Amino acid sequence: MSSTLTLYDIASTVPGQAWSPNTAKARYALNFKGVPHKTVFLEYLEIEPLCKKIGAKPTSETAPHYTLPVLYDSSTDTAVSDSIEIARYLDATYPDLPRLIPAGTAALHYAFTDAHVATLDAFCVYALPATLPILNVASQDYFRRTREAMFGDQRLEDVPPTGDADVVMWNQVKDGLGQVDGWISKNGADSKYVMGDTICYADIVVAGWLRWARLVLAKERWEDILTWHSGRWANLMKDLEKYETIRV
Amino acid sequence: MSSTLTLYDIASTVPGQAWSPNTAKARYALNFKGVPHKTVFLEYLEIEPLCKKIGAKPTSETAPHYTLPVLYDSSTDTAVSDSIEIARYLDATYPDLPRLIPAGTAALHYAFTDAHVATLDAFCVYALPATLPILNVASQDYFRRTREAMFGDQRLEDVPPTGDADVVMWNQVKDGLGQVDGWISKNGADSKYVMGDTICYADIVVAGWLRWARLVLAKERWEDILTWHSGRWANLMKDLEKYETIRV
Repeated sequence: MSSTLTLYDIASTVPGQAWSPNTAKARYALNFKGVPHKTVFLEYLEIEPLCKKIGAKPTSETAPHYTLPVLYDSSTDTAVSDSIEIARYLDATYPDLPRLIPAGTAALHYAFTDAHVATLDAFCVYALPATLPILNVASQDYFRRTREAMFGDQRLEDVPPTGDADVVMWNQVKDGLGQVDGWISKNGADSKYVMGDTICYADIVVAGWLRWARLVLAKERWEDILTWHSGRWANLMKDLEKYETIRV
Repeated sequence: MSSTLTLYDIASTVPGQAWSPNTAKARYALNFKGVPHKTVFLEYLEIEPLCKKIGAKPTSETAPHYTLPVLYDSSTDTAVSDSIEIARYLDATYPDLPRLIPAGTAALHYAFTDAHVATLDAFCVYALPATLPILNVASQDYFRRTREAMFGDQRLEDVPPTGDADVVMWNQVKDGLGQVDGWISKNGADSKYVMGDTICYADIVVAGWLRWARLVLAKERWEDILTWHSGRWANLMKDLEKYETIRV
């Protein structure tokens, strides 16, 4: 396997740059399969021109809206948008490497990602405002404008609640992760992963968002999360740590 | 296998009585596995006393709220509440019969049911009001009170929109099923079921809700649904028809 793959990621000021939960899923997927690749970091305004240049599809047709991650495979001149599509591409292209989405579970994986994202509303109330300061100046205006629109044009700095409202909202973050914990625990009391004993793409989805929390939330918030649900999230992040390497 | 299983279902005035999407899932599951059982129909106000008598747990702890389906197994004096729990009980009790929830997919199935129910808001706007007239008088007050509370205490008769609002809402019903179609089509262009070529419990979830629509919606609405998404729902209902038998 020669390194013909480029992962396009979103730039930032943090060590290693990578912060986005969505591009993190693609990186976990690449490293889980052990596929050589390199990473190119872009500012937000560079995403659409790059996608159009390499033929990467928008991830939303009604606008159209171009997002990262995008994986570009120079050996076949193929561009793949969206982390779950990247996972499927890797499974199809490298069928002899460990499967991300086991045979027969593609539809269940897509439903999982939709169900999972529905648990993240409160989570984003904390994580989105905390992301603005780690972006490069070149991306901050775009990020502020698009993310403030998600909160009725409230200033991002005013979005995280305080006092009693903070206690309520933080409990909603816990409830959201509790729903995911509830699903996983249905495999059995000592089930570690979404499909039981082996990691699959659904675990990577969960870890991608947790990695974002670890990076941007206040230290005591992250330490709180690590104590939740019998340490499930602490264990997951420890088990996936070896797949976090940012290859440049 | 002797018939030690009783499925508790909700009574109505329709032939065969069975109408509820949730109890339909349990019936599909029993018949898919080919497990002998009988059905007992209850009015809404009989549900809680029966559950307490046979030791069936509430499906929501905060109230507590008792619902059907409940499966009672007299051979082990076991009562199981909630259709997905019934499916798991049947898989565990009859491991040599076809699996409803294939090994390793329990968590994905729970996430699927949560993702699926989130697609049903518009669907319920039509189906809930249409259900009131088919219930026995003994259940109508309870149904009206609890369902009108879901719509801000609007009279059920006033819930379905008319004119342009109806067109918009009915399109939302189609979009909801379109989301499910989108998941299933990720298995491949000619994928029939959620897990590909073989029926699993997730298909039964979808069929349970569609069966309700077939029973209560106006004929032309149902015929419209049958034309959607390349006939996927028409084909699913045809394939699952043999598992609809109501055993008394």
